Amino acid sequence: MNGLSASPRVDFASDNHAEAHPAVLAAIVAAARGPAPAYGGDRWTAAAEAGLRDLAGPGSVPLLVFNGTAANVLGLSVLLGPGDAIICAEHSHVAADECGAVEAMLGRKLLPAPAPDGKLTPAAIEAVLDRCTDVRTPRPSVVALTQATELGTCYSLRELAELRELCDRRGLRIYLDGARLANAVARLGCEVADIARFADALSLGFTKNGALGVDALLLMAPGIAERAPYLRRQQGQLASKMRFLAAQVGALLDGGLWLDNARHANAMCDHLAAELEPLPGLRLTQRVQSNAVFVALPRAATDYVRARWALDLLPTGETRLMTSHATAPADVNDLVEEVRASLK
Amino acid sequence: MNGLSASPRVDFASDNHAEAHPAVLAAIVAAARGPAPAYGGDRWTAAAEAGLRDLAGPGSVPLLVFNGTAANVLGLSVLLGPGDAIICAEHSHVAADECGAVEAMLGRKLLPAPAPDGKLTPAAIEAVLDRCTDVRTPRPSVVALTQATELGTCYSLRELAELRELCDRRGLRIYLDGARLANAVARLGCEVADIARFADALSLGFTKNGALGVDALLLMAPGIAERAPYLRRQQGQLASKMRFLAAQVGALLDGGLWLDNARHANAMCDHLAAELEPLPGLRLTQRVQSNAVFVALPRAATDYVRARWALDLLPTGETRLMTSHATAPADVNDLVEEVRASLK
Amino acid sequence: MNGLSASPRVDFASDNHAEAHPAVLAAIVAAARGPAPAYGGDRWTAAAEAGLRDLAGPGSVPLLVFNGTAANVLGLSVLLGPGDAIICAEHSHVAADECGAVEAMLGRKLLPAPAPDGKLTPAAIEAVLDRCTDVRTPRPSVVALTQATELGTCYSLRELAELRELCDRRGLRIYLDGARLANAVARLGCEVADIARFADALSLGFTKNGALGVDALLLMAPGIAERAPYLRRQQGQLASKMRFLAAQVGALLDGGLWLDNARHANAMCDHLAAELEPLPGLRLTQRVQSNAVFVALPRAATDYVRARWALDLLPTGETRLMTSHATAPADVNDLVEEVRASLK
Amino acid sequence: MNGLSASPRVDFASDNHAEAHPAVLAAIVAAARGPAPAYGGDRWTAAAEAGLRDLAGPGSVPLLVFNGTAANVLGLSVLLGPGDAIICAEHSHVAADECGAVEAMLGRKLLPAPAPDGKLTPAAIEAVLDRCTDVRTPRPSVVALTQATELGTCYSLRELAELRELCDRRGLRIYLDGARLANAVARLGCEVADIARFADALSLGFTKNGALGVDALLLMAPGIAERAPYLRRQQGQLASKMRFLAAQVGALLDGGLWLDNARHANAMCDHLAAELEPLPGLRLTQRVQSNAVFVALPRAATDYVRARWALDLLPTGETRLMTSHATAPADVNDLVEEVRASLK
Repeated sequence: MNGLSASPRVDFASDNHAEAHPAVLAAIVAAARGPAPAYGGDRWTAAAEAGLRDLAGPGSVPLLVFNGTAANVLGLSVLLGPGDAIICAEHSHVAADECGAVEAMLGRKLLPAPAPDGKLTPAAIEAVLDRCTDVRTPRPSVVALTQATELGTCYSLRELAELRELCDRRGLRIYLDGARLANAVARLGCEVADIARFADALSLGFTKNGALGVDALLLMAPGIAERAPYLRRQQGQLASKMRFLAAQVGALLDGGLWLDNARHANAMCDHLAAELEPLPGLRLTQRVQSNAVFVALPRAATDYVRARWALDLLPTGETRLMTSHATAPADVNDLVEEVRASLK
Repeated sequence: MNGLSASPRVDFASDNHAEAHPAVLAAIVAAARGPAPAYGGDRWTAAAEAGLRDLAGPGSVPLLVFNGTAANVLGLSVLLGPGDAIICAEHSHVAADECGAVEAMLGRKLLPAPAPDGKLTPAAIEAVLDRCTDVRTPRPSVVALTQATELGTCYSLRELAELRELCDRRGLRIYLDGARLANAVARLGCEVADIARFADALSLGFTKNGALGVDALLLMAPGIAERAPYLRRQQGQLASKMRFLAAQVGALLDGGLWLDNARHANAMCDHLAAELEPLPGLRLTQRVQSNAVFVALPRAATDYVRARWALDLLPTGETRLMTSHATAPADVNDLVEEVRASLK
Repeated sequence: MNGLSASPRVDFASDNHAEAHPAVLAAIVAAARGPAPAYGGDRWTAAAEAGLRDLAGPGSVPLLVFNGTAANVLGLSVLLGPGDAIICAEHSHVAADECGAVEAMLGRKLLPAPAPDGKLTPAAIEAVLDRCTDVRTPRPSVVALTQATELGTCYSLRELAELRELCDRRGLRIYLDGARLANAVARLGCEVADIARFADALSLGFTKNGALGVDALLLMAPGIAERAPYLRRQQGQLASKMRFLAAQVGALLDGGLWLDNARHANAMCDHLAAELEPLPGLRLTQRVQSNAVFVALPRAATDYVRARWALDLLPTGETRLMTSHATAPADVNDLVEEVRASLK
Repeated sequence: MNGLSASPRVDFASDNHAEAHPAVLAAIVAAARGPAPAYGGDRWTAAAEAGLRDLAGPGSVPLLVFNGTAANVLGLSVLLGPGDAIICAEHSHVAADECGAVEAMLGRKLLPAPAPDGKLTPAAIEAVLDRCTDVRTPRPSVVALTQATELGTCYSLRELAELRELCDRRGLRIYLDGARLANAVARLGCEVADIARFADALSLGFTKNGALGVDALLLMAPGIAERAPYLRRQQGQLASKMRFLAAQVGALLDGGLWLDNARHANAMCDHLAAELEPLPGLRLTQRVQSNAVFVALPRAATDYVRARWALDLLPTGETRLMTSHATAPADVNDLVEEVRASLK
């Protein structure tokens, strides 16, 4: 008997499965009392936006939205010129996971580039540009990066600088999908602003990091903020009772809780990777640089572990294991034990 | 001295200003503990959807979204054939208040019809149809109603039946924007299903009725549910941590709290209207059939009261006063007192 | 016996009914021989574009498209910022006749303003702007004018200057639908450039003026031309065998044939109006300033004349009579005779 | 001295470079005289549509549009359910050459599948379906084929039957891009109807086959025709002077000229391929099954020949050589001579 309940445990399947942080709940309860102006005219929104501006740096303009897809669509919509296209990594969330939101809501073509480790390179971007020689292909004018990537890796600040240099030279803007930006900041030991300065717009996700559901879009490039509030409304992303999004952000910004949460998730992930790596018969397929481990397990082990933990088998045959702010060391140990047993 | 604080009170400006109901907060806190599947695979979502199906009737399919605009866009998107247009009332939320969401997200033309009391009539719909004689105008295939309307009025069940009869005869589907459907149900003394059966799809709003932020879309017509989950994702309206939307719905469905809340709001509204109506120098401009009073005040009175209560002056020169689940009789009395004083 | 054939004559129903000018046919035949580069890389396109640049003035950038709707959509698409809306006259072609092309292809909301004579006024535009006070309405950033208007009237150069002044002051761009710009130029006795300088983009129609089917879009504002060729392709408006559009334009520009055609159409229209006006029992409802007469006929007369000439009865109860480059004085006399007889 | 003029010859770069057929010109001239109803109410349109119905088979509904992109977008728009996606070959025109028209005008995602010879296979389609397991990917509901393909190959009738069988089984509709359908019909020795019956909608291109510019969309599936005229208008593809599109179609249908043209182009292509194949140092990279030869030439030869004949170098390093109705045997011989000389 290994202490697992009969129903599958879902802790490692996704950081979206994690519980809300108690501080977030407390903030919501506190914000709920009495009337407050709607649509962001309240004091919680003012405070959350001020905190976000502090994180992203001078001139940044924050907007709260309901989720990561919304932040991506809104961010891209303010950056793209008429008819322009987006260069992105083949496994990026915008291309592979959002059910065609960019095509449907913005009418734009995504031009995916190979990125075996989830990271776009200058060479991969230039290869796409080289294919776009005339009006048969829309003009790429935005590069969409994800940090940390969908494959658990992180761009280094140097890599971001190189991408920025290329984009400046080729007239491209950068949108950065930061659904797990906190994990990247924690990993790189940098500030949000150190990453934000390479982007024209970026998202900062809270949903996967202890919130109930709220992400922020941060506009960095000058001149793009004017239309954003209209587009947020037009895209169905303006919360009438905005204080309940803002209170979540406020609680997570307070005392750097967002960063503590991300550090914890990363630490649990490192622990998990360190325990798994030496086991015979499995293989980590991506570098562990945020809160995800990608591991290729023998088929039998995969089936057993996946069934017990409700984990997905990726099309590539790997299993993705994710940690979160709520992952306990004992959870990691339980999982490792289970994997180890399954390998025998 | 009238007991008002120096900062404007916002209680009557909008039901979006109201606090969250304590039961909703308790449900969120209770749902927050431990891991749960994402994207609606959790037990709170299952329970909320079951409750909604019970309300709307057999064959109905519920989907939770973040807000009313999202429900409207999603509902219309499953009903419209390629290139079709929507007939709506001139003051309807879809036409006048959503920043062009229908045009932007769905690429559809709205064909507004005059509706001085907020309600579409068969004659008004037929007048639009009569103008649509050839390919210069897109085919209208959906009529969008709002219940209760944006002007505080309600369609009677007989009026809905007449509209349904016309629409059946002319090959039109009905979408019903129910951001304040609870107030209409409370007013009419009917069931949700009594209204839902006249619609092909409708929304049921919770945000303005005690929730933090969640509305339901209810699909009634057979054969339209298959694509809806994909469209919800594509339109940025699929919550990853769906349990936090579902828990709100669950709390409001539990014991009919949603209906109690709406009844209370309506009662406060009736009280307010009854107090205002006899006052000299003002005029109620719409029938009071939900939780809104539209009142034309003398200009000086308007300015004074609006400044004190942060109320909007409508383009028509009226002031809209809204009550909510959180409105206290004393609040009504305070406001009436203030209005009375301002009229002198 | 009045000399009319049994089948309805369609000359006066629309300038779209007119035959192609022989010079246009000759140019097409001449351009058809031998191979030529596709997509506008041919010498006919180069010549037509040069001629259009001469007409519209320095810095203008011409693009040929298949028809007027296409020119309108393409022109608006390069002028509008993300999510912005368009102010237009209620009877404008973009709002009333293009089957929702702007909404469908561009996802934009049109904000129609009253314009009883087809012409927008500064006051009408400001009234729309005054209603757009917050994110409930998309930001209007383009005003769409039609010259000559759909009701047969023309803006004077002074009126255009006043509109330009207002738009500059309020941060609005101007798109001018010139499906019948030739008729306006002929009427005003000005140059195309005299009108073009008030617009950020405009169309110059040839289809209704002797061509088989081709209209030009002229981009005037700096910085908007870069994306236009991509958008033309994206919107399905790039002709592979462009020389056959260009040859038509070349023939009409050659020796000012386009202007001669328009002058003739206008003269026939003036003749028609002058003959009709004194007749008892009818009334011209719009000023005659291009090639259209709007006339209110007694019902019996209307029915008779419309049936014989295949004319449309407008929703307003008027009949529109249009002349073209191919209208002969005898045609006018025949029609007038018929109307006169019907009035007895 | 090889008889080539100094300016590059463009005959083999594209069938879009070919001259118009004299019969087409004559038909246009004949149709140009006198007034005719606009928007397809004329007798040339009635005749062309009747001829197209005869070709495509009972129940088919034809619509004329300006070009192939337009036919593709219009055809897909009547087949797709809300939010659905399209499976297509990676090199298909809709995915690779139309500047994102499907994304921009329809808001749909294309799901490209590998197709080294330009032809989709049941296995390739099923592989895409297998990746579409949940709401992260839009539902594929249409498969887009091209016949003849962009790589010069043709589906056999058996292959089409197999694809149809798969699509029926998996609930997919078929759109067939027939920009060069005539060449496929000529190659397969079948009727248009033999191919059309496998499609729910298809285009039949005339532009590359002797016309100035007109393609037909043929709707085959029951119940999809009702909205198509509205969508054609909405998408900017309704010609006001439709008779000039229809006259071209009429001339090409008359006496089977369209088929003669395609047969001639194919025969020239076969001749070209037969002459090239035995030459040392080059390699035909695709099977020659319509009017295109794909040939890999040594770099030096490529540069020389391409410069002389204005041919494109494909990203894959091959050169595409196309024949048309206007290609003369002597042209082929000239080109072969030139290639042969360049290889030395």
